[in-house]
Amino acid sequence: MRLSLIAETLGTPLPGEEREIRAMNTLAEASAEELSYLSDNRYLKSLETTKAAAVLVKADAADAVPAHCIALVCEDVSLAMAKATSLFTPPLIDHNAAEPIIGVESFIDPRANIEKGTVIGKGVTVMAGAYVGSGVVIGDDTVIFPNVTIYRDCRIGSRCRIHGGSTIGADGFGYAHTAQGEHVKIYQNGNVVIEDDVEIGANCSIDRALFNSTIIRRGAKIDNNVHIGHNCDIGEHCIFVAQVGVGGSTHLGRNCVVSGQTAFSDHLEIAPFTTFTARSGVTKSIKESGKIFSGYPLMEHRLWTRLQSRLSKLAKEGISTKRRTKAHETE
Amino acid sequence: MRLSLIAETLGTPLPGEEREIRAMNTLAEASAEELSYLSDNRYLKSLETTKAAAVLVKADAADAVPAHCIALVCEDVSLAMAKATSLFTPPLIDHNAAEPIIGVESFIDPRANIEKGTVIGKGVTVMAGAYVGSGVVIGDDTVIFPNVTIYRDCRIGSRCRIHGGSTIGADGFGYAHTAQGEHVKIYQNGNVVIEDDVEIGANCSIDRALFNSTIIRRGAKIDNNVHIGHNCDIGEHCIFVAQVGVGGSTHLGRNCVVSGQTAFSDHLEIAPFTTFTARSGVTKSIKESGKIFSGYPLMEHRLWTRLQSRLSKLAKEGISTKRRTKAHETE
Amino acid sequence: MRLSLIAETLGTPLPGEEREIRAMNTLAEASAEELSYLSDNRYLKSLETTKAAAVLVKADAADAVPAHCIALVCEDVSLAMAKATSLFTPPLIDHNAAEPIIGVESFIDPRANIEKGTVIGKGVTVMAGAYVGSGVVIGDDTVIFPNVTIYRDCRIGSRCRIHGGSTIGADGFGYAHTAQGEHVKIYQNGNVVIEDDVEIGANCSIDRALFNSTIIRRGAKIDNNVHIGHNCDIGEHCIFVAQVGVGGSTHLGRNCVVSGQTAFSDHLEIAPFTTFTARSGVTKSIKESGKIFSGYPLMEHRLWTRLQSRLSKLAKEGISTKRRTKAHETE
Repeated sequence: MRLSLIAETLGTPLPGEEREIRAMNTLAEASAEELSYLSDNRYLKSLETTKAAAVLVKADAADAVPAHCIALVCEDVSLAMAKATSLFTPPLIDHNAAEPIIGVESFIDPRANIEKGTVIGKGVTVMAGAYVGSGVVIGDDTVIFPNVTIYRDCRIGSRCRIHGGSTIGADGFGYAHTAQGEHVKIYQNGNVVIEDDVEIGANCSIDRALFNSTIIRRGAKIDNNVHIGHNCDIGEHCIFVAQVGVGGSTHLGRNCVVSGQTAFSDHLEIAPFTTFTARSGVTKSIKESGKIFSGYPLMEHRLWTRLQSRLSKLAKEGISTKRRTKAHETE
Repeated sequence: MRLSLIAETLGTPLPGEEREIRAMNTLAEASAEELSYLSDNRYLKSLETTKAAAVLVKADAADAVPAHCIALVCEDVSLAMAKATSLFTPPLIDHNAAEPIIGVESFIDPRANIEKGTVIGKGVTVMAGAYVGSGVVIGDDTVIFPNVTIYRDCRIGSRCRIHGGSTIGADGFGYAHTAQGEHVKIYQNGNVVIEDDVEIGANCSIDRALFNSTIIRRGAKIDNNVHIGHNCDIGEHCIFVAQVGVGGSTHLGRNCVVSGQTAFSDHLEIAPFTTFTARSGVTKSIKESGKIFSGYPLMEHRLWTRLQSRLSKLAKEGISTKRRTKAHETE
Repeated sequence: MRLSLIAETLGTPLPGEEREIRAMNTLAEASAEELSYLSDNRYLKSLETTKAAAVLVKADAADAVPAHCIALVCEDVSLAMAKATSLFTPPLIDHNAAEPIIGVESFIDPRANIEKGTVIGKGVTVMAGAYVGSGVVIGDDTVIFPNVTIYRDCRIGSRCRIHGGSTIGADGFGYAHTAQGEHVKIYQNGNVVIEDDVEIGANCSIDRALFNSTIIRRGAKIDNNVHIGHNCDIGEHCIFVAQVGVGGSTHLGRNCVVSGQTAFSDHLEIAPFTTFTARSGVTKSIKESGKIFSGYPLMEHRLWTRLQSRLSKLAKEGISTKRRTKAHETE
């Protein structure tokens, strides 16, 4: 897309030569054909080193834009960025793509809904009612169970199993906000990449990235009703028990064990081989690997155990021994 | 439906003239063509002012029924009411309705399942595997993603996006209970109304109302795996992060921000511009707008922060400084 | 399947005569035609009394195998057991089964996806986009709403209602683990049995059993987005509010009331008529029936109420009366 068209759409002058812009990306990851943005001055450092062709900035940051990069000055960068994402979003379905390519010994149920532009490997099963969007690539020997939805451009590895009702690649949850309290959609133009040997339970939701990919790495196993936000990176051989939720851009190292109903804030980095007991609430990154955590706020598991024992005492203080005995109902 | 038929079904005498009953409703909202009920004497006040044509009551409340209204005396009003709802529930599919009306420039995938009696606006996309029930109305430029289910008679606004696997308009969760501990279904004869510019994530469940409508108001944005009970009213521009649950008949004012895994009891009134941090547990109404809450039981956010800091101290009491340092694992 | 083939697949010698093995099962439940395993010496007692035709054991437990039973000695019994389950898993679809049998006055939408080998009763409705797998049996007057997925060999009772997006019979979450931290799938060769008069909300996931059945008993009512693990047994007339999660092999007695977002660990036994308030975290079995529990860790409800009142005081200590009043924001 021509940069002049982007500038015109955003109602901002184009202060440099015309450029062809291929996509949008973060300051750190943008290539010389991409548009980026600085919506928070905390990232000024990244602005100085960005390779982006052009960048949306407020007037007060325009001087920090490197010489090779064109500054498009906007009053509200977040709103401008949201508007710009809408220019780069592909159509929901690519009606002009090539016919699906299906590998040998694959069974694609005629009642499955396969869009054009898909490439499906050997020995794959896609069951009735499953949806495989335009440009989706699926490896060998994978099973897509009934009524699974895979949005366009996602990539699924070999020997994966995705269970009924799961949705892979729906829009990440991102909006810019007007002064009037309205929310303006930030189109999610990335995808989801599920590597080999991943199993995903029923009714999971794994959102597509804003830019680039949400990644579920090799060998990860995910139980039912799990939510994984946009741009997450779930390490190899992670185990997620049912009803876990992960906020956007949180990265887990390999072989983490995440027990049921645990939740993660966004933008965390979790060391490999970390274990979370049930219903942990994780709001800070974890640097040291191999530890066990519990609770919300999160603490080391043995500290949490001490706390619970002290709270149990606090609850029972002033109850006579006889009544205390009655208070022990579970075993 | 004739009132005499209702009385006969419930096995109760009809002590007045025949009337035609159009539907059921609460005492407060019933019109002169509707049947209502008093299952709890706390609502006696509403009985005195109801406009209902007839009302199910226990014998001891029959005298409080206003003169224009016919009292059907029942031994167990809840069970009678449940039975009566079954008389008013429409068939699951209206096979006799008119052919769907589809606006110009809409793309209704031939693999989508559209019942008769639907009215779909201009520029709408309904993708493969989506289900649009009898009598559903959809505004302009809305996208219904694959494998979404919209039950009969729901209304979806313009410029909405409903993501894969979400179910709009399934039955609210309501039963009357017999003395033997069995649960008798209360049929949910209302619908869901989703206003303009609403986005709903993947695998959400928004239940239809018992009577009238569950409402998601203009501009609200809802993340994945969210549950919203029957007769909720979610205010304009509310933000719901993933895995939130809302009990029946809870109303939120505009621009509330509800963080992940938060839950609400039923029948609450939440002031506008309220913020709930992650995993809040809301069991009481909130009258003052603009505040931030946390925790379960819920408290003001800064109070919760104080409490957590004190609990952290309580957990560490008696641990030597050296071990206390080790206890800080997260950052 | 011939036992010699199983031994060969597992790379272990067959120290007895050839036997035909029909299926796998636990030591306690295995019949004389089934293969079992001892992966944990805690179950040595069950080994001594098992009726199994053969059993996978470590060398040190081989002497405890009863005379009628053949010991297949494996280095890692869990990994061997996982591998063995793959031998007994049926194909995803039974293309050779008989045409579906449909009772009178049933409406099976032609846009529903019904596999061969199904038996559907009288007066049943299966709506568009629903999937009914091979060998599924459905009773009379049941409604399967759109985009429900029922995996092969599950059994659904009479007068049930299963709402949109729910998945019945997806694989339970079970893996054996290699020394390298990889997870090896344990195939889930059981099914789900849903008895009569059960209602299941939208986007629920009820997993099939490893062996035998996950059971939802007569009259149970389950709200939206609920997860029920493999081999659970949910008692008659239980009530599950939305977003509850139940770990594998947990059994609840009749008429338990489980409020929203409550979670259960695996392998628990819960007495009948137990009530759990919202977001309870249940990690221990409950023997005495008729009690009310709250919190995580779980405690009796009135103890939890005391604790919360004391925590509220702890939070407010040192806040002046004026500020304390301000701290009461909810009502």
